[in-house]
This record gives sequence, structure tokens and C-alpha cells, in this order.
Amino acid sequence: MTVKVAVIYYSSYGATHAMAERLAETAEKQGAEVRLRHVRETAPAEVYEGQEAWKAHLDEIADRPVASPDDIAWADVVVVGSPTRFGQVTSQLQGFIDTLGPYWSEGKLADKVYTAFTSTQTKHGGQETTLISLITLFAHLGGIVVAPGYTDPLKFADGNPYGASKVTGESSELDDTDRDALDHLVTRAIGVAEKLSA
Amino acid sequence: MTVKVAVIYYSSYGATHAMAERLAETAEKQGAEVRLRHVRETAPAEVYEGQEAWKAHLDEIADRPVASPDDIAWADVVVVGSPTRFGQVTSQLQGFIDTLGPYWSEGKLADKVYTAFTSTQTKHGGQETTLISLITLFAHLGGIVVAPGYTDPLKFADGNPYGASKVTGESSELDDTDRDALDHLVTRAIGVAEKLSA
Amino acid sequence: MTVKVAVIYYSSYGATHAMAERLAETAEKQGAEVRLRHVRETAPAEVYEGQEAWKAHLDEIADRPVASPDDIAWADVVVVGSPTRFGQVTSQLQGFIDTLGPYWSEGKLADKVYTAFTSTQTKHGGQETTLISLITLFAHLGGIVVAPGYTDPLKFADGNPYGASKVTGESSELDDTDRDALDHLVTRAIGVAEKLSA
Amino acid sequence: MTVKVAVIYYSSYGATHAMAERLAETAEKQGAEVRLRHVRETAPAEVYEGQEAWKAHLDEIADRPVASPDDIAWADVVVVGSPTRFGQVTSQLQGFIDTLGPYWSEGKLADKVYTAFTSTQTKHGGQETTLISLITLFAHLGGIVVAPGYTDPLKFADGNPYGASKVTGESSELDDTDRDALDHLVTRAIGVAEKLSA
Repeated sequence: MTVKVAVIYYSSYGATHAMAERLAETAEKQGAEVRLRHVRETAPAEVYEGQEAWKAHLDEIADRPVASPDDIAWADVVVVGSPTRFGQVTSQLQGFIDTLGPYWSEGKLADKVYTAFTSTQTKHGGQETTLISLITLFAHLGGIVVAPGYTDPLKFADGNPYGASKVTGESSELDDTDRDALDHLVTRAIGVAEKLSA
Repeated sequence: MTVKVAVIYYSSYGATHAMAERLAETAEKQGAEVRLRHVRETAPAEVYEGQEAWKAHLDEIADRPVASPDDIAWADVVVVGSPTRFGQVTSQLQGFIDTLGPYWSEGKLADKVYTAFTSTQTKHGGQETTLISLITLFAHLGGIVVAPGYTDPLKFADGNPYGASKVTGESSELDDTDRDALDHLVTRAIGVAEKLSA
Repeated sequence: MTVKVAVIYYSSYGATHAMAERLAETAEKQGAEVRLRHVRETAPAEVYEGQEAWKAHLDEIADRPVASPDDIAWADVVVVGSPTRFGQVTSQLQGFIDTLGPYWSEGKLADKVYTAFTSTQTKHGGQETTLISLITLFAHLGGIVVAPGYTDPLKFADGNPYGASKVTGESSELDDTDRDALDHLVTRAIGVAEKLSA
Repeated sequence: MTVKVAVIYYSSYGATHAMAERLAETAEKQGAEVRLRHVRETAPAEVYEGQEAWKAHLDEIADRPVASPDDIAWADVVVVGSPTRFGQVTSQLQGFIDTLGPYWSEGKLADKVYTAFTSTQTKHGGQETTLISLITLFAHLGGIVVAPGYTDPLKFADGNPYGASKVTGESSELDDTDRDALDHLVTRAIGVAEKLSA
């Protein structure tokens, strides 16, 4: 069967967006049907208008489809990503999460494969806590959480067992270690979903 | 000296609001100068318009002052509260947190006493994780975190060492156990702040 | 196929042991092959000798088999439980976890279904944090984490989406809500394991 | 007044020990009275006998004083450290924590300044979660948690707002970034304790 993958994320300046795009491309190469969906920007226009890189990213994604709870209901695999804000997900991603109540209470979000990714400015300021927050969310949803652990030697390079992560303070461009970790994350999740729906 | 207390919170239906008001009243009785501040609603109007209790609460607080990062910079004690959304704070509170960057990078939010409160619908669905999320935030801010622990016998009644919490699924009205825990939380925080600025 | 379930736990006074036994019984009723294994006591004899209930429980389980990493390697479903000690698992359970290194590095613990249970003295002093700690462990192991969420109406009674939990301060005997939550936890985990190995 | 600092830690191979020694030296240079205390080894002899570096470290500290709950009761500042084991503290440190019950229930551990440090093999496999576990413990104890945040520019080098941490997989020797972070951690904690007891 064809696995359906929803990559749902928020990005202000593009690093998390680049991670999401990589996840989507890799999932497609695996033969999955993919929905790549950013969440709605909720910051007031006067905030992002004053920040060139943020504004540029919003322009770049302006015509792309926005995430809805239905994208999770549709999917077999849900990959959720957000930069950190003080160890937690952004308010924009949380804004989307806050709308899940009706679908959640009808059981439409349970029993799917969930996994997470993040990016942080500093080395150890949310690389783990943000992912654990997302795993906490997945538990509430009744998800089947497929964290990467160290199930492949490449995980000892990126070093994060809870999901895929990037320290943007080092560089905002994806490097080989980032790509390997992202590819592993989504490939593993798809593999579990395939088994589950066999 | 007079301790300055900022109670910063979000509430949809009024339970967290009632907790915040109790904290503010008790702080004032202790001789503190208090700013009681809710954060800006960020949900689209079409969402809350359809929910009577939510709309009624928004009307109730319409003329009250809204939280700004300056309220934290001003305070000696910062008490932060939010209902849970799947184990995390609401997007509305996170929306406020997301605006703290400039003050944070100038060091204006550090070295203050911080403590947290929450309310959840279910018994063990965020009573602890939401408070740990807020404590994680406080660590990022360089705060001095004064969790209640079991530093008073009354804490064995409400039973939450990480902050003050209420299970709204049992009743949305504050009862004696709730009030005791809230009073203890803010009184203890004020006591530490007094010592710190002696 | 027959699902293999390892229930691995520590108990000082018997409440977590009662939870573990219920899990094992229910798993057997589902047709699973079950290993019920407590971890080795590591407290010095002079500590537990002085505590009658603790000593009595040690006597009770003296002839039962002790957990080894091989029990995890053998299993399809691993259910791990511990009382809380200040929001974390007991040193006894952690002592067992600390021996997993060699099996972990050979990949023998990955890709299994993991889920957790706990008991605490106080209402909100580790009911969630202990389970999140165990889920964090499962992520390190490359496990497939099957938390219960609210995937059945009975979860709104016990109220814990992260696993099964009991407040022993209320009563150390299992009641119907406890049994329902435990049954749901292990039945759901077995169901996922069956699909995975179909 | 002279601030009393207890540095309580576990180390298998010496990296966390080196961190603890640095903390103790810096605290002494600040004029503090210091107790540097490792916790009792609880692994069976047959385990560590087979590992040369572990055995060598045990020999090195054989004549040094072992931590007791009284060291916390005595102190104004308590700095707790452990390597990670799958995102949690070692069973040896947890073994010590498990003995705190009697002192905790008498309130002897509350109202002290607490802060934490850790070391991990991998880059993002416990650098944050282990520290959050320790902060969770501190909340249970009714401690005053003084995490470093980013209260000094040097914290943007080591990058961990929750405490001091070292990735031993990169090198087990302390480097300047490690020493700076450790010095900052304990100096800041002493500063808060001085204010609290003025």
C-alpha cells in the first residue's frame, strides 16, 4: 500500500522549512504520498514586516497549502516540526495544535505513527526539550511514537535519539549530517507505518 | 521594601482566570504591588464567537490591561499560568512568550523569582508536564525558580510539587484546597523575593 | 502469531507489583506469552530489614525470576513500571536500565513496543514526570512507544494519557479504574505488536 | 557570611568527577566552604572489575568522603551531577536520592539553592533531559532552582541554559568552554545564596 505522510511544521526564517522539505522529498522517494504543510502565521504583521528574512520566508510560502487537522486525520505518518522558543514549540505551531480538539475527541488522530524534528539557535537550548514536548503531545493524541533512537550508526553523528534536530547557530544550511538524520527519521517512520497497515 | 508581583496568564473559560485573581488578591494582602495581566487572545474571532463561555470570559476581561514583556522586567516575582493543551501551554500564552526575545537578550528577565500554575480537564493530562514546560522556560530566562515542593503540609492535599494546579474536570470553581495551594505558592515566592532584595 | 510480553518492574511495598500482576494476567488472557519480572533489589539490607512491609514484599517475590536484558530482547511488547522517587524512577529500576548498554549497542532492544506504568504517593508528584522519563528511555532504545492517550472512554476516568498510573496515597489496593486502565494499556500494546509482526 | 556548598555527584570514568572538582575549586576560590562528595558505587563488583577505567576511577576516590543526606541539610548551595543513562541520572545517583525521604519529610532539604550538571556520550542524548530530571527533583525538595539561563555571554558558547554539561564523546578532558560554564554555574548559585542569607 501507499503510505500517506503529513509533514506539518512552522518556520520563521527557513531552517525548519528546509528540514521539512527534505523530509517530504525523501518520503516521496520512498513511494509515499506526501502533504507538506506549514501552519498559519499568527504573529501580528507589524512584527514580521520589520524582519526581512522572516518576511521573505512568508512570501516564499504564500501560495503553499496551509495545515489543517484533516491532514493528520488523512495521514498514516505525521512528522511535526518547530523551531524552539525557550524550550517549547512556537506559538504558531501551538496555535495549530490548539485546533485539534474536535478531531482528537472523535479519535481521528490516534493510532498513527508520529515523529518530530526541531531547530534551535543554541547548542543545548531546546534540542531535546522541544522534541520531548512534541512526544508528550503525541501521547495525548494516542499516537504511536517512533523516535529514531540510535537505530542506525548515523544517529551517533547527529546524536539526537528523540527526533531530528539542527543547531542553526552553527549554520542555517542543511549539511550531510542533517540530511542523513532527516532521511533516517522519515524512512523509519514509513517503515513502521507499512508494517502497521500490512 | 515592597515586592512587585506580576501574575501573567491565559484563560479561555475562566478557571485559570479565577486562579490568577486569587494569586493577585493574596499577593496584595501580603503587601505586594501587583500587576494582574492576561495575555492577548490570538484565536480567530470565528472560533471563540461560537463558544458562549469563552466569548463571555473575553467580554469580562475586555477592559483589563494586557500583559507586556515590560511587566516581567518590572516585577520581582513572576507567576505564570495557563490551561494545558495536550501537555503544553496554550498558543495564546506561548504567543506572549514568543515576544520576550528582545527583553531576554538584554538580560531584563533574569534573576527574578518565577513560579507557575495550571489547570487541566483531565486528572493527569498536563498537571505536571505543563508546569515542567513553564519551569523549562524559566530556566531559559535565567530565572530563580521557586516551586512549592511539599514545603507545607497543605501541599499534601493538592499534591503538586511543581506549582499550583487545578483539575477543572472535577469542578471549575476554586475550592479550599485550590485556594490554599495558590496562597502558599505566591506567599512563598514573595518570601524568597524579599530575602533576595533585602 | 503469539505476542511475547515482558512486564518489568520494581515495587517496594506491593502496589506496583499488583499493577504488574494485573498486566501479566490480562496479557495472558489475550493469548500472549508473558514474562513477569521484577528487578533486583539494590537497597542495603539494613534499610529494608527495618521496614516490615518492604521486607514482606521481598519475601513474597523471593522465588520469582528476576529481570534480565534478555527479557527485553525476547519480547515484542515491553511494559516497564516503577513507583516514583521525586519524579523519577527508583534506583532499583534504574539499576536494571543501567545494565542495558551492551544489548542497546547491538540493537537488540529497538523496534519493540514499549509502554509504561507508575504509582505515586501524592496526587501530582510524579504521575506524569515518571512516565515521561520512561518514554524518554524508550526513545533512547529506539522503541515504538504506544502510550494510551485517550483512545478509550475509560481513559477519562483514570485520566493519564502517558501510561497507567495509580495514586497509592488514596489506596494501595487496585480498584476498577486502575484495572481498566491497566487492561487497556497492555491490550492496546499487544494489538500494535500484532499488527507490526503480521 | 560564608556560603556552604555541597557538590554531590556520581562518575564512572572520571569526566563528571573532573566537572565536580572544578566546581569545588571555584567555589572555594569564591570563599565558600565546600563539601565535595561522590555517591556510593552500587554496581556489582563483577561489573566494574571488568572495566579498567571504571575500576581505576573507583580506586582514585576510594579514600574520599561519601555523600550523605546530611551534606544537603548542611549546605546553602547544592550542586548535583551525574552522567546520563538513556536521558536519566545513573542508578548510583538515584540510589542516593532514594535515601532522602526522611530528611525531605522533615523539611531539611527545602529552601536551599540547587543547580545541576551532567555529561553525555552523544551530542543530544541527555544533555537537556538529564538536567530537567534533576530540576524536577529539586522542585520535589522545595528547592530554589538557579539554572544558568543565558545570564552571561559565555553561556552562548556552551549553550545549555538548564545547567552545565559536557559532551564526553567529543573529549573527556575539560576545555575552556566547560570550565567557563562550570565556574559560571557555581558562582551564580553562590551569589543567589549570599543574597538569600543576607
